[in-house]
Amino acid sequence: MPRAALQLLMLALPLAAAQADPLAAGRDKYVQCASCHGSDGRSAVMPQYPKIGGQNLEYLINALKAYRDGRRQGTYAAMMGLVAKPLSDEDIANLAAYIASL
Amino acid sequence: MPRAALQLLMLALPLAAAQADPLAAGRDKYVQCASCHGSDGRSAVMPQYPKIGGQNLEYLINALKAYRDGRRQGTYAAMMGLVAKPLSDEDIANLAAYIASL
Repeated sequence: MPRAALQLLMLALPLAAAQADPLAAGRDKYVQCASCHGSDGRSAVMPQYPKIGGQNLEYLINALKAYRDGRRQGTYAAMMGLVAKPLSDEDIANLAAYIASL
Repeated sequence: MPRAALQLLMLALPLAAAQADPLAAGRDKYVQCASCHGSDGRSAVMPQYPKIGGQNLEYLINALKAYRDGRRQGTYAAMMGLVAKPLSDEDIANLAAYIASL
């Protein structure tokens, strides 16, 4: 590999590492959640919405998958289903890691 | 009303008032929840179980009704469905008030 190409690769590595960081990836995805759940995950704009900041990681993963896969119905499950629909299992793992860290 | 009966009634009033207190009634019902969710609602015995102490009142009411009425499926919804099955709307309101107060 030419020396210049190697230097470019080494410059790009920290960026790749940042994108591979679950918390950073989750924080990016959380933007759409914050409008209803608050930036701290505890300031729900409606009393019907749950506080989610600091919730248990595994519960968050299961809840997001249940919304995405239509296993939660009623109240606001349809809205959460729409929001969760495009999320991959990896997206959900990253999001849950970030929300649990709040 | 004879004086003795009136005195008996007045003695019984605080007891009746305590039973009509949603928080006290909810605390009584919470005993069966505490074995999984912890006495403070934040010490789940399994990481798959959610922290519920201090959760928003309206969310708790909707969640308990959704479990009871079979609108939450998968993971531990079947177990919560069994636990919530015998609860009346009033039981759920009392329980939610107590859990939200934790």
